[in-house]
Amino acid sequence: MDPAATHPEAAVDAIRRKLGPAGWIDDTSEMAAYVIDWSRRFGGEAVGIARPSSTEEVAAVVRAAATAGFGIVPQGGNTGLCGGSVPIAGSGKPVLILSLQRMNRVRAIDPVDYTVTAEAGCVLETLQKFAAEHGRYFPLSLAAEGSCTIGGNLSTNAGGTNVLKYGNARELALGLEVVLPDGEIWDGLRSLRKDNRGYDLKDLFIGAEGTLGVITAAVLRLFPLPRAIAAALVAVKSPEAALLLLDRARAASRDSVETFELLPRETLELVLRHIPGIQEPMPEISPFYVLLELVSTADGDGETGELLEGLLASAFEEGIATDAVVAKSEAQRNALWRIRESIPEAGRVEGPSITHDVSVPVSKVPEFYRAALSAIGKAAPGARAFGFGHLGDGNLHFSIRPAPGEDPQILIEREAEVSAPLFELLERMNGSFSAEHGIGQRKVGQLVRSKSAVEMRLMRSIKDALDPLGIMNPGKVL
Amino acid sequence: MDPAATHPEAAVDAIRRKLGPAGWIDDTSEMAAYVIDWSRRFGGEAVGIARPSSTEEVAAVVRAAATAGFGIVPQGGNTGLCGGSVPIAGSGKPVLILSLQRMNRVRAIDPVDYTVTAEAGCVLETLQKFAAEHGRYFPLSLAAEGSCTIGGNLSTNAGGTNVLKYGNARELALGLEVVLPDGEIWDGLRSLRKDNRGYDLKDLFIGAEGTLGVITAAVLRLFPLPRAIAAALVAVKSPEAALLLLDRARAASRDSVETFELLPRETLELVLRHIPGIQEPMPEISPFYVLLELVSTADGDGETGELLEGLLASAFEEGIATDAVVAKSEAQRNALWRIRESIPEAGRVEGPSITHDVSVPVSKVPEFYRAALSAIGKAAPGARAFGFGHLGDGNLHFSIRPAPGEDPQILIEREAEVSAPLFELLERMNGSFSAEHGIGQRKVGQLVRSKSAVEMRLMRSIKDALDPLGIMNPGKVL
Repeated sequence: MDPAATHPEAAVDAIRRKLGPAGWIDDTSEMAAYVIDWSRRFGGEAVGIARPSSTEEVAAVVRAAATAGFGIVPQGGNTGLCGGSVPIAGSGKPVLILSLQRMNRVRAIDPVDYTVTAEAGCVLETLQKFAAEHGRYFPLSLAAEGSCTIGGNLSTNAGGTNVLKYGNARELALGLEVVLPDGEIWDGLRSLRKDNRGYDLKDLFIGAEGTLGVITAAVLRLFPLPRAIAAALVAVKSPEAALLLLDRARAASRDSVETFELLPRETLELVLRHIPGIQEPMPEISPFYVLLELVSTADGDGETGELLEGLLASAFEEGIATDAVVAKSEAQRNALWRIRESIPEAGRVEGPSITHDVSVPVSKVPEFYRAALSAIGKAAPGARAFGFGHLGDGNLHFSIRPAPGEDPQILIEREAEVSAPLFELLERMNGSFSAEHGIGQRKVGQLVRSKSAVEMRLMRSIKDALDPLGIMNPGKVL
Repeated sequence: MDPAATHPEAAVDAIRRKLGPAGWIDDTSEMAAYVIDWSRRFGGEAVGIARPSSTEEVAAVVRAAATAGFGIVPQGGNTGLCGGSVPIAGSGKPVLILSLQRMNRVRAIDPVDYTVTAEAGCVLETLQKFAAEHGRYFPLSLAAEGSCTIGGNLSTNAGGTNVLKYGNARELALGLEVVLPDGEIWDGLRSLRKDNRGYDLKDLFIGAEGTLGVITAAVLRLFPLPRAIAAALVAVKSPEAALLLLDRARAASRDSVETFELLPRETLELVLRHIPGIQEPMPEISPFYVLLELVSTADGDGETGELLEGLLASAFEEGIATDAVVAKSEAQRNALWRIRESIPEAGRVEGPSITHDVSVPVSKVPEFYRAALSAIGKAAPGARAFGFGHLGDGNLHFSIRPAPGEDPQILIEREAEVSAPLFELLERMNGSFSAEHGIGQRKVGQLVRSKSAVEMRLMRSIKDALDPLGIMNPGKVL
């Protein structure tokens, strides 16, 4: 790179020359899609958008930025929920956005090794399909899968609906390639199931939201393709009953529960109210429902449906479940999933709300649920609060809305006050205020408040050791 | 702690006062079991053995040692294979051994959360049994389970025979409690399945062999207890055939293959020769065998045995397997395991050998196996070489022995020379020279030779950031 790149303009020139016309954007209107997040809640100024097409180009951008004193904001599909992939408004520090979108190749797949090597900009859905074409299953699945990228999934340690059986993004990564803050490339692209040679560097970059380096590629674990899936929506009286159902389902199914999502009645009503074509799934109204899926990878296994029927029969007998709708076809299964997947959209139509992404130990969900409703009820009398989602992982998305007919803005202005008892409760129950969405710029203050001084010091010392100039995604996480 | 503890003698006095008579050993004969490893290959001088009984006592020992300039060698069951838990002979630096053996309580179990919280000194087998008494399964399983400890398992990221289905020790840990090199306690004892609040500190300590801090307790994942296990010893013609069998077994069994161990004929002959009561398992001699287990957690599942029979029938038909012995009882299953588990003992009786713990991508095992035999054959004509063990994880324990009747010492003196082509091969195939045994003091030089400068620099910067005085297990790993 040009030694004159110590001046910001020279650094931009050097990057532009290195990446070519497709690799640099600084036209304001073209930049708009990159500098603001999809919710339009977070975003700020950027010097430009670097769009490298190779690891070596990423390294060149990082070196040029370091020399010029630019911060670097790595970005994948820009679908994050905490503003981690966009600049911070009014931060004063010049930053450039490093978009990985052009690094979207699948470099290799090895079905016998059950691994695939993909670049960071590879869209999650593309990778799922690619694996399926090779008779293998990449289980990471979440609402944004049509546009989020593998690099973003790893940088935020994405969760989603299949964590119970397959783990988070972290558990799916065997190896990484990372461009470090000094522009060096760390080649950790290994596909080994066992490798105890020194420190586990990989897991330091996973979930670090681009603050320690830029993930440019990964070796990911694959699984046998599901051959049979049995799905049901099950009515239960309480989160306690849902938890009993989970226990019975794990015991009855060779631990092959892939989905276990809790849907309180409130979510069903939201969806019925706002999403066309969704119907009341069963005659009686239930306070809670569970979307449950058992999966089998055995060839021609007709037994999964029977397992589910048997499980439900004994759940009725035990009084754990009160009713259920079993999907008899792929169309019926999609209809059940449509209820679950329409909740965020229905929520948006309903109007603004306070939302939180929380987790507690799985066994503590019922206790947490009750205590949270009670605490919120005191802080915001009349507000409607409910938690839905990944009960099997102890992870619920909590929603707080005003009483019907009231102005949501009044509640939202009291967000900190209304949420405080929820956070205190999480603290007390050794839970997390950010189960799967990360910290980004949105939750930096809360991280400091919730973590011990020892833990913050450990994180800071690692950040300083790896990124002494503080150029990697400045102001995020720490 | 006493401020006078800046002098070594004062530090020892302070530790002794703090821990009481049960907590300090400096009598030479009593120290013998701690300062030398079980193989009697590694070991050295120690100032004394500190045996704290609480996390707070561990912290006090670390603070006293730091002030006095002592190195600290954390030790669990002292069953490691690379000298990680004993002092280095003639290192010149005074060290004390910090034995975690008295910290052996199970602090809590939560069957509904599928978690257990155990102290570092808890013996693995004790924990397995404790979990089983509560209807849960802790799947980590390895030869030393009767004496190795959870702290050692985590510090070395232990593997063993159940990794294919359940992962290494790393994947089984949800949270840790660690005493840091400055004597502060990091309380990371969380049991959350999803928690994306900042950097993943836990995985930095797992596999670090005590060089970054002392693991004092952990929250570990549990699983449904296996209800049915179907085991067989299967004769196959080659590692290729074994790999095909693995693929068929995963596809046929809802991915419930728990054990998949490769046993070349040489291992069977060793065992037949040296271990009383073991008999030739089938009429025809086969060049390779696979010890295979399918597991089911479903209540009263009679189907696992049928699955195995079906799998074997189609493997015979496809020509993948040539013969098999299916265990019809728990006694027969134990007899099959006895063959596998007697290999190390039979090897010891046979005489000294060169051994390596290697891994390659699972799909590359056959290619590696052939190339390794050929390379060793050139470096040591007439030597007998074979690899056995965890084929399902791409992890084999390689053994090189002299031609029958020749003096093994002649071969062993040539260890570096004979092993070099094996290491070159691993390098070329992106494999590992230490799959599950770690680095300790034995493989420090080899780590430097095999890792890139970038990776060594990253590891060093983390070590310096967390342990600036270099007191934690000095000379190990880095």
